Amino acid sequence: MIKPSILPGMMELLPEDQIVFNEIKDIIEKTFKKFGFLPLDTPVMEKQEILFAKGGGETSKQVYAFEKGSAKIGLRYDLTVPLARYVAQYFSDLNFPFRRYHIDKVYRGERNQRGRYREFYQCDIDIVGNTSLSLYNDAEIPAVMNEVFKSLGFNNFKFLFNNRKLLNGFFQSLGLEDFEFTLRTIDKLDKIGIENVKKEFVERNVDKGTIDKLLAFISTKGTNSEILSYLKNLDISNELFEEGLSELSFVYDNMKALGIHDENIQISLNITRGLDYYTGSVYETILTGYESIGSICSGGRYENLAGNYTKQKLPGVGMSIGLTRLFYQLKEANLLEDKSPHITECLIIPMKGYEDKGIELLTHLRENDKMVQIYLEGGKLKKQFNYADKLNVPYTIIIGEEEASTGTYSIRDMKTGEQKTVSYDELIKYL
Amino acid sequence: MIKPSILPGMMELLPEDQIVFNEIKDIIEKTFKKFGFLPLDTPVMEKQEILFAKGGGETSKQVYAFEKGSAKIGLRYDLTVPLARYVAQYFSDLNFPFRRYHIDKVYRGERNQRGRYREFYQCDIDIVGNTSLSLYNDAEIPAVMNEVFKSLGFNNFKFLFNNRKLLNGFFQSLGLEDFEFTLRTIDKLDKIGIENVKKEFVERNVDKGTIDKLLAFISTKGTNSEILSYLKNLDISNELFEEGLSELSFVYDNMKALGIHDENIQISLNITRGLDYYTGSVYETILTGYESIGSICSGGRYENLAGNYTKQKLPGVGMSIGLTRLFYQLKEANLLEDKSPHITECLIIPMKGYEDKGIELLTHLRENDKMVQIYLEGGKLKKQFNYADKLNVPYTIIIGEEEASTGTYSIRDMKTGEQKTVSYDELIKYL
Repeated sequence: MIKPSILPGMMELLPEDQIVFNEIKDIIEKTFKKFGFLPLDTPVMEKQEILFAKGGGETSKQVYAFEKGSAKIGLRYDLTVPLARYVAQYFSDLNFPFRRYHIDKVYRGERNQRGRYREFYQCDIDIVGNTSLSLYNDAEIPAVMNEVFKSLGFNNFKFLFNNRKLLNGFFQSLGLEDFEFTLRTIDKLDKIGIENVKKEFVERNVDKGTIDKLLAFISTKGTNSEILSYLKNLDISNELFEEGLSELSFVYDNMKALGIHDENIQISLNITRGLDYYTGSVYETILTGYESIGSICSGGRYENLAGNYTKQKLPGVGMSIGLTRLFYQLKEANLLEDKSPHITECLIIPMKGYEDKGIELLTHLRENDKMVQIYLEGGKLKKQFNYADKLNVPYTIIIGEEEASTGTYSIRDMKTGEQKTVSYDELIKYL
Repeated sequence: MIKPSILPGMMELLPEDQIVFNEIKDIIEKTFKKFGFLPLDTPVMEKQEILFAKGGGETSKQVYAFEKGSAKIGLRYDLTVPLARYVAQYFSDLNFPFRRYHIDKVYRGERNQRGRYREFYQCDIDIVGNTSLSLYNDAEIPAVMNEVFKSLGFNNFKFLFNNRKLLNGFFQSLGLEDFEFTLRTIDKLDKIGIENVKKEFVERNVDKGTIDKLLAFISTKGTNSEILSYLKNLDISNELFEEGLSELSFVYDNMKALGIHDENIQISLNITRGLDYYTGSVYETILTGYESIGSICSGGRYENLAGNYTKQKLPGVGMSIGLTRLFYQLKEANLLEDKSPHITECLIIPMKGYEDKGIELLTHLRENDKMVQIYLEGGKLKKQFNYADKLNVPYTIIIGEEEASTGTYSIRDMKTGEQKTVSYDELIKYL
């Protein structure tokens, strides 16, 4: 006998939680479709040469890589590499701008720790252009996520929004030409603290005045219009900065035009998205009051998606929700709404000898598209109600001698305990 | 530059086909839920000791097995082993009879051939009892699949239905005590032909009279009631046979009571399901007129699901659709219904300078839950309509000077080419 267990780092849920998880996943998918994103479903296994095309790094060490026969196989570690490979592979068959969603599992052999998973769902949307892609799309992407979060019942979320060109232009205006170093260092602010960040710049011979200007810039607080005014008033004559500011401002205006409330947007000059491949707009998303959860939905604009696989220039913009981690955190924070998850709306319990009557009713109700099941295992009434209770089923219908002889049904509201005797027509209306 | 490609034996679809595939998958899932099956989502990666618990065989050679660190990992090759492991692992948390559906990918490193896939979807339903499980469930399972196929628009399908006890009892009455050999041999009938089957029995010293009786039995043709009469009239006094006949007859009656039409059931005494672990009812499903496709949905009753992982006796009954293969075959046979698959119902095309008007309309329509998108990449009208055409979008709305000045919208039916000028209220009604 083998002890039944799963590998560490996997999320596996009991049915009650799984119902809630799937409800969230369904709302996300429904919203992605509403906004005209096309479904994609790529293999979990990719060729290693595809996964490793961009070279080594931390992620490639985490890939589940193996061989079978002569095939060198890896499990995908995100949904972006498969998208890049897909768009390059089927380029001539696709309709650009190509809007796709992809909700599925990805795999990373990370160090095992609470709330981090080795198999987890990502929910990605991207819009990929052929050669060029209008800046309107940078507003459309968060507009989709805005509706996702509203549909999930969250109202206290904020899109933290910034622009890489604006940042790099500002760095340039200060004479900080090593954008990568500067981005990486300010990205560490939360982790290592302001004094250590300053020290890293000093070690690079950046003078104190410049460091102070930089830190003042990224710490700018205020309403969105205050920050936009502040940026305009800086009066920096740097092409990159001006382009970034104009983009930031245009995207902000269009986010509002697309229905995002101003209170759900926060222009945040300290958002960099680390060393990712983003080149313009960058986004993170926080739940106000639950900032410690971290960003629940991130993304940005990139200049060229599939340079490793094609000569076609494919700019795009996208965002992604890490659903498995989000679900874990919502559960930990007691923010899951459904208190009584169930699938079946009604359970029929026939008394011994009235099984056929029960099946007859069951079949009629199903023909009327009711979500109903029947308990036919026999046993005591207590056992049968115990089954109904554990199912969280809102209604049960008892069929016994009295009901059969009078052609009625006893329906019980499982929450209130209230019981009624009704005709078939009343029953249909009731359910 | 790496050539973009995927591993052989994977199904990857273009968006148009993916829409249709997902429509089918959604109908299957919706039906499973309607009948009260609970969702399950287990890790794709299982411990090798779980996957290999039942010992070697053909399937275990096909498992994608590998190691990472000290973990011995395998990709699941079906959804039944994960179900067995899950039910054993969470036994005390589950509500029995446990009805679960599971729709997801499984992996088999099979020989590469047309129409066979190494990654493919299975759509499983099972009902698992604790210690016992009523025979009604053997009728419930095909009743679910009946509604699945009707909902998918198939009417010419047949459940081929048989019972292992009936078969084994008949073998016993003929003195054929090696049930496994007998099942395996008659299962080969289609593949090796009647003469070779006879030869195999002769080599086992089975006499000619017995062989003829056996072959006559499994070749019995007729309506369901004719076959039931034939079986009763055989008047075989064998306990196993009588039990099987009584089960077959009871399940058949209840399949009809649960809404399956008699023309969709065919009691078929030659159905054995090979060497699988079934112990009572067995089912296959064919599309009439497309028998060469083979069984599109199979399953049966088993006495003990999880003997490798627990001492609990867990009998169950289930059926499974191999969706990836089914989709491939429906496409090959030109049986896919959706001729114009699309997600977006309406595309807004604003003329240059009227983008803001377009976004305003877009936002209003989305607030009214319309599935609408906007084209904001500019360019010539021809390019924009080309985008709409490739999207299979039923309607486009043009907004230009005239529309903006009169507060109207021009809506075009993309199928008929008909164009109308309408007010906003008319537009909402129209879509």
